[in-house]
This record gives sequence, C-alpha cells and structure tokens, in this order.
Amino acid sequence: MSNPPSQSLLTELKDRLGLKGFTADPSDLAPWLQDWRGRYQGAAAAMLSPATTQQVSDIVRLCAAEGVPLVPQGGNTSMAGGATPSEAGDALLLSTRRMNRLRSISAEANVAVAEAGVILADLHEAAAAVGRRFPLSLGAKGSATIGGLVSTNAGGTQVLRFGTMRALVEGIEAVLPDGSIFDSLAPLKKDNRGYDLRQLLIGAEGTLGIVTAASLKLVPAVGSRSVAWCGLESPDKALALLRLLDNAVGDAVESFELVPRQALDLVLRHVAGTRAPLGGSHGWHVLIEAVAPMVAPSPEKELGRALGAALEIGVIEDAIIAQNEAQAEALWRIRDSISEAEKKDGPAAKHDVSVEVSAMPAFMIEATAAVEQRFPGTRVIAFGHLGDGNVHFNVRAPEGADQAWAVGEGSAVTAFVHDLVTAAGGSISAEHGIGQMRLAELARLGDPTRLAAMRAIKKALDPKGIMNPGKLVPPIARAQASLAQSPHRQ
Amino acid sequence: MSNPPSQSLLTELKDRLGLKGFTADPSDLAPWLQDWRGRYQGAAAAMLSPATTQQVSDIVRLCAAEGVPLVPQGGNTSMAGGATPSEAGDALLLSTRRMNRLRSISAEANVAVAEAGVILADLHEAAAAVGRRFPLSLGAKGSATIGGLVSTNAGGTQVLRFGTMRALVEGIEAVLPDGSIFDSLAPLKKDNRGYDLRQLLIGAEGTLGIVTAASLKLVPAVGSRSVAWCGLESPDKALALLRLLDNAVGDAVESFELVPRQALDLVLRHVAGTRAPLGGSHGWHVLIEAVAPMVAPSPEKELGRALGAALEIGVIEDAIIAQNEAQAEALWRIRDSISEAEKKDGPAAKHDVSVEVSAMPAFMIEATAAVEQRFPGTRVIAFGHLGDGNVHFNVRAPEGADQAWAVGEGSAVTAFVHDLVTAAGGSISAEHGIGQMRLAELARLGDPTRLAAMRAIKKALDPKGIMNPGKLVPPIARAQASLAQSPHRQ
Repeated sequence: MSNPPSQSLLTELKDRLGLKGFTADPSDLAPWLQDWRGRYQGAAAAMLSPATTQQVSDIVRLCAAEGVPLVPQGGNTSMAGGATPSEAGDALLLSTRRMNRLRSISAEANVAVAEAGVILADLHEAAAAVGRRFPLSLGAKGSATIGGLVSTNAGGTQVLRFGTMRALVEGIEAVLPDGSIFDSLAPLKKDNRGYDLRQLLIGAEGTLGIVTAASLKLVPAVGSRSVAWCGLESPDKALALLRLLDNAVGDAVESFELVPRQALDLVLRHVAGTRAPLGGSHGWHVLIEAVAPMVAPSPEKELGRALGAALEIGVIEDAIIAQNEAQAEALWRIRDSISEAEKKDGPAAKHDVSVEVSAMPAFMIEATAAVEQRFPGTRVIAFGHLGDGNVHFNVRAPEGADQAWAVGEGSAVTAFVHDLVTAAGGSISAEHGIGQMRLAELARLGDPTRLAAMRAIKKALDPKGIMNPGKLVPPIARAQASLAQSPHRQ
Repeated sequence: MSNPPSQSLLTELKDRLGLKGFTADPSDLAPWLQDWRGRYQGAAAAMLSPATTQQVSDIVRLCAAEGVPLVPQGGNTSMAGGATPSEAGDALLLSTRRMNRLRSISAEANVAVAEAGVILADLHEAAAAVGRRFPLSLGAKGSATIGGLVSTNAGGTQVLRFGTMRALVEGIEAVLPDGSIFDSLAPLKKDNRGYDLRQLLIGAEGTLGIVTAASLKLVPAVGSRSVAWCGLESPDKALALLRLLDNAVGDAVESFELVPRQALDLVLRHVAGTRAPLGGSHGWHVLIEAVAPMVAPSPEKELGRALGAALEIGVIEDAIIAQNEAQAEALWRIRDSISEAEKKDGPAAKHDVSVEVSAMPAFMIEATAAVEQRFPGTRVIAFGHLGDGNVHFNVRAPEGADQAWAVGEGSAVTAFVHDLVTAAGGSISAEHGIGQMRLAELARLGDPTRLAAMRAIKKALDPKGIMNPGKLVPPIARAQASLAQSPHRQ
C-alpha cells in the first residue's frame, strides 16, 4: 500500500525544510537508523527535521499524497524498536528533535506545554526552576523526548503515585495522517465532547499520527525525601509491606522497587563503587522512596515508624533509612545499575510484563520455577515496580551461552514467559510498548476482539497506512505478522 | 441504514430473555421512554433487560444481523437526552438494570468489579462496608448506574482530587457492535499493548458498544472531614484561595464549589430550612471540603490556619468552619439545593461549560456581562466546580417569562454562551455529555478535524450504526444534524 518517496517529493521536502530540516547524507542518518539496543537496523532515503507543527503538517500532507510512510522519532530510546524504520527503505524518518521549545510553563496553573522534541531532563529542570516538578522519570531521561514518552505511554519509577504518562497528559497537539492538525492542547480538566482522541494517541506509537506537543501536569516540588532499603523473605511479604505503608504513610510513597538477591549480587559484582546496603543476606529487597512537599514535614518519621512496625510483625527482616542525600543516592544507584550489571554478565531474554498487583508475588515465584525447570540452566531475575504489578522478568542464559542464545532458545523462553503471563490475565508489554519487537507475539496472544478493533481504528484514521508502518498493529494473517517482524540483530 | 425490528426478531429475543428480560407492554416501557428532565420523548417496540454479558452479546448479534439499533440505558439520569431513543421507534431499549451484581470487591487491592447496572449509591455502601470508598459522587447517585457513569465519563463534586470517571476506571468489559465481548476487566496498572479501547469506550455514550462491567478504583475511607464556607469578593479571589489551600492543605481538599450570592439567595428563598451560613453579605461564596484518611489527624487545623491567612491578606471576607456533622450537612445542603431552587424560580437556559482553570474567573465575569447586555432582563447564575474549570453557567429568563422562553430566546442564549466558551478555548460539555441535546451545537462548533476522526472511528467500529444512533457523533451535513436533534419538550 505504501510507496517509496519519489525524487520530486524529496526535492520539494528539501526546499521546504531547508538545510537544517532535511538530510539525505548516509553518515548523518546512520545513528538514527539503528535502535539504541542494536537490535534493529533500518533504512531511509532521508531524515526530515521540521521545526514547527505547520512543517510537520506540510510533510504529512505531501507524503500522504504519494503514500510514502513516515517513521517519527524522538530520542531514539525505544525498548521495542518502535522508532526504527524497516529495512525496505521506503519510509522517511521524521525527527522531532528540532521541535524542542517549551511553549509555556505555569507554576500557578501547574501545567507545562512542551513540544514533542523537548528532552525529559530539560523539562525536569524547567519545572524545578518554577518550584514544581514533572513526576515521571526513567533511565533514558537525558535523551527521551516528550513526543516519544506520550506516544509510548511511558512509565518509570513514580507510576505508583502519579500513574503513567496517560495520567499526566492534559492536552495534545498532533498531526493526523491526512496532514490535518488536531489541536487539543487546552488543559481542560473536564471535556465530554465525544471520543477522546488524545487518549487514542497516547500509546499509539506514532501509528495514528504524530504528536507535536503536549500539555503536561506539574506537581509541587519535593521538599524532602526519605529513602529506605529493606531486606525481606518473599515478594508476598513485599506486597504486605506496601499495603502497610499505604495505610501508614499513604500518598507520600512514590517508589517501591523490588530487587531480588541475584540482582543485588550482579550489581555488587559488576558495578564499581557499590556496596551491600544491609549486613545480612536476604532473598528479596525493596527500595522505597517517600517524599513530602515543601510545606510538609519530612516523611522520615512516618516511614521509620511503619518500617519498625513491619519489622516487629515479621513482614521485613531488616531495613535501613538513608541519613543523607549521599546515602539515598547510593541506594538508588544499586537499583539503577541492575540493567548494566545484567548486560555485563551475559545474554538474557528480557520481558516487561504486568499482572494485577495482588497476583504478582505468586506469579513471580511460579513463573520463575516453571521457566527454570523448562529451560535448565537459565536463571530468572525479576525486579522492578512491584506496586504497579509490573516487573522486568529477565531470564539469563545458562553459563557459557553466547549472544546467539537470545535468538535461539531465548525466543522460546520469551514465548513461554508470554504464555504464562497471558494465562495469568496479564500484559506482555507493561510499559515498553509493542514496536516491532513484540508485534508477532501480540498477533499470537492478543485478544482477537481487541486486535480487530485496533485494526479498524488504524484503517479508519490512516487508510493509506503511512504512519509508522509495521509497528504496534499486527496485520491480519499471523504468517504475515511473523514476516513483518525484522530479524533480531544482536 | 438502520431498520425497525421484525416480528421474528422480537419473538426470538423474547424467547431468549424470558419474562423478566423482555417487555413490549407500553405501560412498562413508558417511564423509560422519556428522559428525567422531561425534554425528550422516544419510542421503542420493546425493552430488553439482559441479566448477563452473554445475553447482551446475543442481543447485539441478533440486532446487528437485522441492522436494528439499540439504545442502552442505566438509571435514565442523562442530562443530555443520551439514553432516550428517537421518536421513530425503530430502536430497541436495552436496560442494564438487571445486571446489578458487584462481582468482587477487595479492600486489599483497592478495586471493585461492578456490573453496568450497579447503582452508584450501592457501590458507595459496598465500599464503606470494607473500609474503602469510591470517590465519585453526584446528585443522581440513587439512580445513576456504573454503565452510564462510565459511558458519560461522569464528574461530580470530587473531581478536583480524584478526577472524572476516566481516572477511576481500571478495567472495562463491553459488548462491541458486532456482538463480540471485549474483556479488559483486569485492573492492570500498566498495559501498553496498543490502542486503549477502554479509553475510547469511556465517554462514548454507548455509541461504540455497550459497557457491561467495570473495574473501579477504591481509595481509603474518610477518617474525618472538615467543611468550611467562605464569603469573598470575586471568582478571581476564589481561585487565589484555591491555590493557597493547594499549598497549605494539599491533596486533602476534595471539593471546592463556587456559589454566587444570587444562587444562595434563591436557595434561601425557595428551600425550607436553609439559612445563610455567614452574617454579612458577600458577592461570592465557596464551599470547601477537606478530608483525611483514618490514620491521619483531622485536616481542620490546617484548613483553619489557611483560611486565617487568607482572611489576613484579603483573599476572603469571612469564613466559617463546621463544628460538627450537622453543620457540615447544612452547608452542603445549600450547594446541593441550587438546582431545585432555580427550578422553582422559573425557566432558565442551562449550560455545562469548561475552560482552563486559570481562565475561569475572567470568563465568568465577562460572559455574564455579555449575556446580560445582549439579552436584557436575563440574569446569569454561574456556580459549581471552580477548581475543575467547570461551572454550570445558567441564564435565568427575564421576570414573567413562561416555559416557552427556553425554546425561543433560550436557544439563542445557548448559542451565544457556546460561542463565548468556544472562543475562550473551552468545552460546551464539561461533564454532561452531548447526547441528543447538544448534537447540533457540537456539529456547529466542534473542531472539524476532531469531528472527522470521531465519525471515522464510529464508522470503523459500528459500520451498521446500530449503537445508540443519533447521539454524540454529529452526522456530516449540518442541516442533517439539526434534523437529527429531537424537538425540545418542556
């Protein structure tokens, strides 16, 4: 259905966008044609870097006329190959990085209007400068852009309190597949004039249009934080601890990250300058962050009291509360280094799964046993956002396996894990999205009713199929879905 | 495109649904064929009252085969004629009232799974019984059902803290227009497997399918509440007070309802047993409710301190904090009696509008002046949810006008108010929805890009147009849109 760009189209685009907005130079393009995990290698005749929403609209209108596909890209930090074009080279890359203006920010109204190319860390800084904060953060914050975060409904470590991107987006501006500009930036708290297109664009991975700007909710700046590390017996106890904190400390608990002993061991082995937070050895650990706004007293007392009570009734085995910022940073560094440590330790099949929060402890134990029994020598490390019912369920290859493992047995492991999570009523993509990496698995395991509705919506809004083709929406035949998936390059 | 039901279809439905689930008796049907405000009178050959999701699916499949439209109805409390079939009588009424089972409720997981026909007040009771609450309430809570609340993305008096229904729905089960069952009830906090159909069904007013059940978020029960009434000079000062409370009392502020002097006067005149909360006379009033969970101390001290500070710097003119539950109830009774008092006072053109929160004070003053100048003798009473940027902007008829005023000059007033709110970047339906009452206005004032996308989505998911036809989605030609709107019956 789609066509490669004609020379006349490329010339027209070059004329309109100018030197800064158009490049067909292979060396300029190269870094943006491979995803950051090095799994996908795409091709494109040119990269377009519009500076304004109107330019995006012009591009889309011109490409729609010729049926030329567009692949939008922000910081190129997709965990699922969502921003990498196909190898066919028929699509044009549309980079939002020049659209990096913070159009407005208001501490009084608690809202910032950021263009798609604004980098998350820059938004954090701008919010801090007016005494507010934008309460979503993740590892790639130095590169990830607002457009990508909206389009992937990104999560992170503060979802427990503030929800995913969906809960923080109060307005959207986007260019739809016919080039029309959808302006719904006004941060109306209440608006019941029909289908909420904004909700449809959030998490659509660019397949229904290109998000060009968003109105984002700000919250009060943090006055003080209290960071604690606990050792405990099981994920079950961890969830009991969370409920206990819910009642005793309430909304102040912003992060609750579960870390198994194996993950801690990996970090201590592979990441210089880290050390065990607690004296003894524990099967499981939890990193907790509680915060209080400027006007309120530090949550340390409530946190300390709650952890004391948890110790007394046997919910936790040990705990430490950071006494200063350096200690708090050191505790967070352990959590944030897990992926790096895993990478250094060898190949693994990674999964980003969710089930109902209350079902997660049992799922982790049972799925770990099932995987390690079915694939002898593998070792599961499941860690992360227990309070969201979302863990990164990573399966490490048997000792001595090389990188080829990931595409061989690793694929079988992935199918097995996804079967388990689907049987448990969960999701095979909690926060990373589908992109191209999970497309065949979504086709295999997705609810047919939902897939049919998704295809109908995609076709209704993007009849020419020019918006980020081959991502997110599985084609009808399963055989096709497998073909549409790019080969792993690892 | 749609057809009236054949006799064989009616017979088949009667056989499947049994005596309790099928009636064609005009006297049984009558109460459900008129909306509660008495504005719309519809017709239907039968009312179907399925008891299970499977029965809803059977009904939809049978009706889809014949192209017979279905109008879903819960408590019949629509503010916009959204649950009343057309006068043509070609549609069947589908009542969800027999689907009133609370499938599960968990204090630990903070979630309740309620079928579409569960009445809001019953959910409140069930939540209280397990030490939790469902934080959405509104005047019609004794009749309004979960299915209707989801389908209209209902608001109410606690949106300030907890958001509209959209923020409280964690899962949905629905029957789509082809009869397939969309099961997305699992309350996954994170799920990025593509377009979020649940978000599309929320607020769709039954035009994309029939919501049969929802997973709903519960929050901790209220330990104590503190209710205050303030007198102040202007909406502008009211917003300044809200910001002040935001900083000093924070999340505990759940309600912040603005009441103009005229509305208070109407209540005192028409509603027995009410009395002025403050000694002096003030142009504007605010009703505030702050709550604290079981474990926390009462918010009264913080509230008192914040109001003291507000008094000192001239933000408010006077204030009273209820000293007991009876006083708190008396203050709330004033707010809740405004609609009743208005009704007793004579005809009015009512509007449910929103603009950005920070723009609302100026909008209220300017729009009031503009309306009263353009339509001499009219008097504006704008009251309600200032913190949500949403007021009920009601325009009372000149003295001596009779009920015919509403369809005559009243319609011109409505168009004028909607023009003003649209020019201010706001919404002509903040929480009441479009239904049939606002359809022509949405066609006249809606963003063409958004309307085109809505029509495309509607057509994609409901190609036969059998789901609640004539509601929410304006047909293409404006002339048609006017014809599609039922005449006012008042």
